[in-house]
Amino acid sequence: MKFTTVRDIQKDKERYLGREITIGGWVRSNRDSKTFGFLMISDGTWFDQLQVVYHDSMENFAEIRKVNVGAALIIRGTLVATPEAKQPFEIQAEEISIEGSSAADYPLQKKRHSAEFLRTIPHLRPRTNLFQATFRVRSLIAYAIHSFFQEQGFVYVHTPLITSSDAEGAGEMFHVTTLDLNHVPKNEDGSVNFSEDFFGKETNLTVSGQLNAETFAQAFRNIYTFGPTFRAENSNTTRHAAEFWMIEPEIAFAELSDNMELAEAMLKYVIRYVLQNAPEEMNFFNTFVDKGLLERLNHVVNSDFGRVSYTEAVEILEKHNDEFDYKVSWGCDLQTEHERYLTEQIYKRPIFVTDYPKEIKAFYMKLNPDGKTVAAMDCLVPGIGEIIGGSQREDDYEKLLSRIEELGMNKETYDFYLDLRKYGTTRHAGFGLGFERCVMYLTGVGNIRDVLPFPRTVGNCEL
Amino acid sequence: MKFTTVRDIQKDKERYLGREITIGGWVRSNRDSKTFGFLMISDGTWFDQLQVVYHDSMENFAEIRKVNVGAALIIRGTLVATPEAKQPFEIQAEEISIEGSSAADYPLQKKRHSAEFLRTIPHLRPRTNLFQATFRVRSLIAYAIHSFFQEQGFVYVHTPLITSSDAEGAGEMFHVTTLDLNHVPKNEDGSVNFSEDFFGKETNLTVSGQLNAETFAQAFRNIYTFGPTFRAENSNTTRHAAEFWMIEPEIAFAELSDNMELAEAMLKYVIRYVLQNAPEEMNFFNTFVDKGLLERLNHVVNSDFGRVSYTEAVEILEKHNDEFDYKVSWGCDLQTEHERYLTEQIYKRPIFVTDYPKEIKAFYMKLNPDGKTVAAMDCLVPGIGEIIGGSQREDDYEKLLSRIEELGMNKETYDFYLDLRKYGTTRHAGFGLGFERCVMYLTGVGNIRDVLPFPRTVGNCEL
Repeated sequence: MKFTTVRDIQKDKERYLGREITIGGWVRSNRDSKTFGFLMISDGTWFDQLQVVYHDSMENFAEIRKVNVGAALIIRGTLVATPEAKQPFEIQAEEISIEGSSAADYPLQKKRHSAEFLRTIPHLRPRTNLFQATFRVRSLIAYAIHSFFQEQGFVYVHTPLITSSDAEGAGEMFHVTTLDLNHVPKNEDGSVNFSEDFFGKETNLTVSGQLNAETFAQAFRNIYTFGPTFRAENSNTTRHAAEFWMIEPEIAFAELSDNMELAEAMLKYVIRYVLQNAPEEMNFFNTFVDKGLLERLNHVVNSDFGRVSYTEAVEILEKHNDEFDYKVSWGCDLQTEHERYLTEQIYKRPIFVTDYPKEIKAFYMKLNPDGKTVAAMDCLVPGIGEIIGGSQREDDYEKLLSRIEELGMNKETYDFYLDLRKYGTTRHAGFGLGFERCVMYLTGVGNIRDVLPFPRTVGNCEL
Repeated sequence: MKFTTVRDIQKDKERYLGREITIGGWVRSNRDSKTFGFLMISDGTWFDQLQVVYHDSMENFAEIRKVNVGAALIIRGTLVATPEAKQPFEIQAEEISIEGSSAADYPLQKKRHSAEFLRTIPHLRPRTNLFQATFRVRSLIAYAIHSFFQEQGFVYVHTPLITSSDAEGAGEMFHVTTLDLNHVPKNEDGSVNFSEDFFGKETNLTVSGQLNAETFAQAFRNIYTFGPTFRAENSNTTRHAAEFWMIEPEIAFAELSDNMELAEAMLKYVIRYVLQNAPEEMNFFNTFVDKGLLERLNHVVNSDFGRVSYTEAVEILEKHNDEFDYKVSWGCDLQTEHERYLTEQIYKRPIFVTDYPKEIKAFYMKLNPDGKTVAAMDCLVPGIGEIIGGSQREDDYEKLLSRIEELGMNKETYDFYLDLRKYGTTRHAGFGLGFERCVMYLTGVGNIRDVLPFPRTVGNCEL
């Protein structure tokens, strides 16, 4: 059977108006009077629903009148213009068949359901307006990110999920094992015998693909990753998930300023793409989820991002310490309240804060000539705070090695990483964008559980 | 510093010829005579290398003469046309600075290295021709797949990696846990106390996103997944990896024939995209890796895929049983030797084999009216055998339930999946494409370890 989709119609109205078409879709509402009725149908391909008018001339009129919300129908009819109605066209049905009925206990009725309730039915919530909009925009953002990098010739690298790295933050990693947890094999000294495990060694789920990604940047120059990342953090907040997606570009022959240019261009590209390709969804978010959303995003697209060093930022913030829960002083990490104050109150646009104290940043960041700060950058945006974190990487073998030793890290684990500084090292930089944070930022949705199709958080792993 | 890349030049030669440019890249070879020398440079953005000519008029001529393979250089010079040489242009260098030297023990010298050796240095092998070609094409295939689906409005769904499903094949799954493997907490009856685990229950790494994907297809109609998948299979072959990527489209209001059309269109789109966008790489594969590659791919693009039922296929194959290690009879699963015989000897083009015995296929496949076979499809291609497996899904609640019970599966695990058949069920279908198999097919590379950036196989998890 050949179906026309609502997307087909929306993309080429002139072609379908006045013609007989067949539509498959799900009932969002069914209003009837004695001799006719109206169905609102979603076929999933377009945010706006399609109105279908049916009459008692239809053989199964009585049956269709009783069709429940959620039922799947196949509708043959003529698409007609309705210039005086809210929607620009509707279908005058000639034949409607019930593809799949909907049981009376269908949990999604024509009313507002709370986000909390909808989280209990992750397999059905994509059928609601909120999640139709959210997950379509999520998909568009993902594609916009790929397009942005691919158009510039960046190579997409699938860095591995299972890793044998015993790196920093190992306490926050998930173990991956095929050992029988009921009978974990032990060595003579009582420790776990990982030689019997699948990989013959201890393995975990990755917390970042960056170090692997750098090996590819030193071959392809411009690369990006886009894949899942894991944190076994016991934090039950609206912004943390145990499984989320990250984008990590890495560019060789590049410095911190190139990195900032790339991040700014990427964010603007993605916002523009979504505004252009999902206007219905974005209007929905702006109306029902976050009233300032469109204004804020348009402002970002049209702003030059500000740039301020950490040291300058601290000087500014210190003057407003009475407004903060955590007082600011040089050396402290910036909290969300400080980040938002800077971008919302001081600069009123997105900014990059650069050159943080080395003590609060990762070992691989490039030491500045001052010996105290590193060439780091955080991108802060109004309404959310930090959305991107990145840096120029330490490209000097000796400096990197002494930092690794200074921090008591296991050098052998980083031999491959040190090799990159031994064989044709280059100035290079990169950043990480948490994909779900980005989706939250572009939709206004406030809980990470509502931008992930099947969220995994502490104590929660449904379906 | 502003660099011009080789890609910039290749995309717009007229713009750069005769102009002074600055290039950053890595030395692939360095030939010198007394008064001048030639460098072959890769900057990672283009497969073909760029020749750089330098002269003893340069201050650091002596130093540049001694530069090793693998070193990173920054070269300022004029791009000049060389109509009589093999490469169409070269750089006449005015200034060369050493960005990063390459130690004398650099493992990649200007000679052929074996794939086995290169697997021991996954952080450096992307700098060789073979892996430059492979991983760039891998990236292009990934993007082509996204473009194919997005252009048709499919929604990209990130199905979860960590799953609490205790489904089929649990023996082949990796456990995910934060329990201390040295001291696994136990219940009174001696079993593992998973209530102390991160998610409060037993969790594993997913083997397929399909069931989750179906929930989205019943909301968005046309969706696809593209994400990592895991198998803890103890199989040390050239075609199995423990971590690999899968594409799983799922389409509602669609039957097996729609599914086959989609799979055929997707494969052709991806092949065309790669042939158009990576001609240098594809010629390299055709010359050095697999001599029949381009002919085979062009043939696929220009063929209508054949279609044959399993029953017919078995009738054909039985006539040639003397040629097979495994003899064919109705009811048996087809081996690679049979699949390749069908597509290479009988049909001489890609084919779909459909309607397999239900016993050898998954529980969710739609039972045909004969009661014996299911609406499955495998796509077989010359040179490889099965590349895609899919089916129409059982959309009838009662039939699905009785199949679940017949197979002794835990109904509760599938309640969400049964719900899809209770609330607006539709005819729907989908398939799975193993991404690495696809990369192997399009490049001719014969070992899955060489198309994965950092392969994970039994006993092997490096970096």
